[in-house]
Amino acid sequence: MKAVLVIADGMADVPLKELSSKTPLEAARKPSLNRVAESGICGLMDVIAPGVPPGSDTAHLALLGYDVMEVYTGRGALEAVGSGIDILPNDLAFRCNFATVDGDFKVIDRRAGRIENEDATKLTAAIKESLRTDPLEVGDILFKNTVQHRAILRLSGPNLSTMVSDTDPHESGVKVLKARPLDGSPEAKETAEILNELTQRFYEVLSPHPLNKERQKKGQLPANIILCRGVGQLPDIDPLPLLYGIRPAAIAAVPLVKGVCKVAGMRLLPVAGATGTYETNVIAKAKVAAEALKSYDFVLVHVKATDLAGHDNKPQKKIEMIEKVDALVGYLLSHVDLEEVLIVVTADHTTSSIKKEHSGEPVPVAIMGPDVRTDDVKEFGERACAKGGLGRISGRDLMPILLNFLGKAEKAGS
Amino acid sequence: MKAVLVIADGMADVPLKELSSKTPLEAARKPSLNRVAESGICGLMDVIAPGVPPGSDTAHLALLGYDVMEVYTGRGALEAVGSGIDILPNDLAFRCNFATVDGDFKVIDRRAGRIENEDATKLTAAIKESLRTDPLEVGDILFKNTVQHRAILRLSGPNLSTMVSDTDPHESGVKVLKARPLDGSPEAKETAEILNELTQRFYEVLSPHPLNKERQKKGQLPANIILCRGVGQLPDIDPLPLLYGIRPAAIAAVPLVKGVCKVAGMRLLPVAGATGTYETNVIAKAKVAAEALKSYDFVLVHVKATDLAGHDNKPQKKIEMIEKVDALVGYLLSHVDLEEVLIVVTADHTTSSIKKEHSGEPVPVAIMGPDVRTDDVKEFGERACAKGGLGRISGRDLMPILLNFLGKAEKAGS
Repeated sequence: MKAVLVIADGMADVPLKELSSKTPLEAARKPSLNRVAESGICGLMDVIAPGVPPGSDTAHLALLGYDVMEVYTGRGALEAVGSGIDILPNDLAFRCNFATVDGDFKVIDRRAGRIENEDATKLTAAIKESLRTDPLEVGDILFKNTVQHRAILRLSGPNLSTMVSDTDPHESGVKVLKARPLDGSPEAKETAEILNELTQRFYEVLSPHPLNKERQKKGQLPANIILCRGVGQLPDIDPLPLLYGIRPAAIAAVPLVKGVCKVAGMRLLPVAGATGTYETNVIAKAKVAAEALKSYDFVLVHVKATDLAGHDNKPQKKIEMIEKVDALVGYLLSHVDLEEVLIVVTADHTTSSIKKEHSGEPVPVAIMGPDVRTDDVKEFGERACAKGGLGRISGRDLMPILLNFLGKAEKAGS
Repeated sequence: MKAVLVIADGMADVPLKELSSKTPLEAARKPSLNRVAESGICGLMDVIAPGVPPGSDTAHLALLGYDVMEVYTGRGALEAVGSGIDILPNDLAFRCNFATVDGDFKVIDRRAGRIENEDATKLTAAIKESLRTDPLEVGDILFKNTVQHRAILRLSGPNLSTMVSDTDPHESGVKVLKARPLDGSPEAKETAEILNELTQRFYEVLSPHPLNKERQKKGQLPANIILCRGVGQLPDIDPLPLLYGIRPAAIAAVPLVKGVCKVAGMRLLPVAGATGTYETNVIAKAKVAAEALKSYDFVLVHVKATDLAGHDNKPQKKIEMIEKVDALVGYLLSHVDLEEVLIVVTADHTTSSIKKEHSGEPVPVAIMGPDVRTDDVKEFGERACAKGGLGRISGRDLMPILLNFLGKAEKAGS
């Protein structure tokens, strides 16, 4: 037996008045998702714990079977790995933004007018050059822009700590924050000092840069500072092949989920047209997944845009994306051998269209396979699955349950 | 209130095509089990944890309320205790087989042609005599045959460790293994050395033994080596009377379950005709149980053969055994005072007739008693009980739930 696990990001929601008190998932036309529910066993899943809104990083770690409370130190390193940056144990990684500040370091725009990749790349070159010719008196520093205003900062060295606060104030109209040590260790103190020295350097390099003068002439905001947040280290985890004796692969477009999957020892499979946006090509993803099942035991397929629609409070857009996920699952149902492949569908968390944020309600989950104990559930929905044969499980239970179906579960005792 | 807990070993299963996609439990005629479900409260139980296939030893420890991950060290000591051998804390016990090897110690048959009790007893006497007249320079060694090729080895001494590997290669056609230390401790090293020295001695005593010459003349395989596996120590647990303030008894035929119950401080009640096989006399067990409820608060009744039928992939045989369990429960229903005795029915694990092995699906559980909150479940089955009022509980939850019904639960706080 093999398994494909389809995770639609933030697909679960709450009842919405504009949908006659249905959730977007309940309101969507979803024959294939319903077929998985009807032919399979269903339930509700608290991805982290009841009532706790999961992040996408912690959610995926939990769904892969890890103890989030024990292994998670922050988003930075996972996103960095997903962006193709090498992170070693003990390295620190921050999520960064090119931003605009005035002469007093007061933030005018946290995204420097959503600066284009091209300009960010040029400014990044200047930062690199400065750090090369006039290095800070500390360990190795790597700075890399990714998409638009986004960038990654990596600090490597023997005396670093994640116990430092952000320099990003997370709002405009206030000053860039001084990084502060969050415990009494000399490592936290040193890390905060490096971050503050770097922030000064960012301003000194970027502020007078000719490109920023040009931007201002064109009426664009200068990208004259870098804001840092979300420091993290690699979670100290065993990869899935070692943990479970399986060959795992993942199909995902967004760096954070790619990072989690890579850190978990999954092979990342590239898909042309998979974008992490509303326009993503779900059938292309399904095709790669179906093909991958020939070489891998466990294939995770992540779809991002269901979550975006929730954050944007666009229920109709969310329904549309859910129907795309349904098409993805439909392709799998008609292109894999259902006697040999378990089809598993769920979400990594609830995104409430009302709160426009991740929310703590459990998510529906359905597992279809030849030997599962089917139940009476006929629809894949938040409330329908609550009556299913799985009952209410925890996110960390999902992998053991799947491994049991795959014949890979280890007996406890004899 | 008192309680009788009927545990049918491996009774739960998965839907089977040959039973029109019913499980053996669903397909069986079971009026008494159904009555317990209908008059009681039902649920699903993850005996160890979701998806984790329990062993029979760990399952029973969990069902009695112990934290398996903390207290379990291996099967050997539990089986030894169940076989009537005294095991003290810090003693090591191994499960052993009389086996047949060639001159190069290559295993020809792991069970020495399933040697009869009589021959095994004679060979055991020779081993004892050798260890008495020419003792190894280590602590106390006890070797005892049990049934057919099976035996127990007990090592007692101050410097022993369970961190040693088996000498049993678990298959024929390969050499007897050298015991290896599994950690860097001097205790593990010494234990491995003792085991290897003993293995040599076993061969030296058994190989030239006249009985083996006779066996070969008769065309039987010589029992010329002892293979050791499954080392374990007594779990460091408080007995049930101390933990819960109850007088507990157990009715079980197989050594492993007897061992767990004995170690848990339960009185083992002998039953003539209880064999642990398909031919076991379930009514005799029920009679002893009903009688025992006069003297004990809590009586556990274990039936083994449901599990055997699953391992053998004999669904009809499994149905037959389940119907015997039903008869046992039927006897209890008509012979105990249901106003004063809680009737509890469950399995220690799922045994999948397809995998022919313990499997990680949860087991059904039903509790019938005068004050339980009944639900709509009318059938005792894997899928019916999934809709019950207990929801999905963990094996370790069962005893606290029963103690509450017995009025023996301790309030947490005030």
